Amino acid sequence: MSPTHKVYIAGPEVFLPNGFAQMQRKGELALAQGFFPSTMAENDLDPTGVSAFQFGCQISAANEKMMRDADFCIANLTPFRGISADIGTGYEVGFMIALGKPVFGYTNTSKLYYERLLEDYYRGKAEKDAEGVLRGADGLMIEDHGMVDNLMFDGGISAIGGRLVRRDVPSEAMLTDLGAYDECLGLARDFFGKM
Amino acid sequence: MSPTHKVYIAGPEVFLPNGFAQMQRKGELALAQGFFPSTMAENDLDPTGVSAFQFGCQISAANEKMMRDADFCIANLTPFRGISADIGTGYEVGFMIALGKPVFGYTNTSKLYYERLLEDYYRGKAEKDAEGVLRGADGLMIEDHGMVDNLMFDGGISAIGGRLVRRDVPSEAMLTDLGAYDECLGLARDFFGKM
Repeated sequence: MSPTHKVYIAGPEVFLPNGFAQMQRKGELALAQGFFPSTMAENDLDPTGVSAFQFGCQISAANEKMMRDADFCIANLTPFRGISADIGTGYEVGFMIALGKPVFGYTNTSKLYYERLLEDYYRGKAEKDAEGVLRGADGLMIEDHGMVDNLMFDGGISAIGGRLVRRDVPSEAMLTDLGAYDECLGLARDFFGKM
Repeated sequence: MSPTHKVYIAGPEVFLPNGFAQMQRKGELALAQGFFPSTMAENDLDPTGVSAFQFGCQISAANEKMMRDADFCIANLTPFRGISADIGTGYEVGFMIALGKPVFGYTNTSKLYYERLLEDYYRGKAEKDAEGVLRGADGLMIEDHGMVDNLMFDGGISAIGGRLVRRDVPSEAMLTDLGAYDECLGLARDFFGKM
């Protein structure tokens, strides 16, 4: 079958030890479902003679161009270096939704944002204030919308007709398991129609 | 002077103990510089009879509508509950830049992303791999673009003609100090022209 739509593959894979292979694998899986994958921006860029800051700007510009060229996005929203998804991926989800392009997100934990905040970040230490709002020891509100991360993600993704898939993956495979990614490809295939 | 443009005020203020007062103060400062501030979405919403998830979706939809209505954004990108900015704010910066609207960001630390990753997150423990890429003990790349956060922020904001302001603020005031916010209002005033 020949590819029908372009997918922008968002996620923190570039930072992984096996990042290049992982991104290649994600591209192959996309092609197998009939989607053109966005290729790594860095491949077409040359850092020679530019500052690290300028090179970062080149990568950013290439990513933004790829997003504008793509028909939809699949975003790895698995918690990354903390309680939330990779913030670069977060930026990209907002970017694609503003352009009216569907986003299919996934996270390799079934733990909701509220549970991660309360159990992992605040270690269970939280109290309700005078107005009944649950707060951590630092005074910050612990929000509970039954959502995967900050409410902009479940909210924006569902409003645009996308989906946010949760799977429970052993912690050592959380950043690499591609089962939920493949499920997103299938959901996108249904969204755009069978070939 | 009468307001000329609408500003979407992005940041994690809603989670602060004094969140409402802080958002009011930010709105007043915007008005003083001649900008209509975006008002809190929650004020116009009623959680009665809807699930927490549905209410979260209502807030998200109201925020997205306000972003589409606004002329520009000022975003508080101070690190929030970890190494990076509030991810909801990150989503919103990407959203506004996709719409072609200028973003003025600020962060109340002069520590760059690389320094926070290496010193605060990895506690100085990092090694170069065979290809010379610096990695933490978890194998993840420690990127250094001389930037404030993930490269999409400095990249997108500078490409759209905005600015990213850094200030050193004592840690106890990092989430509340409004000096850099006020500086962003002045930069936006210059951007849109004096009244």
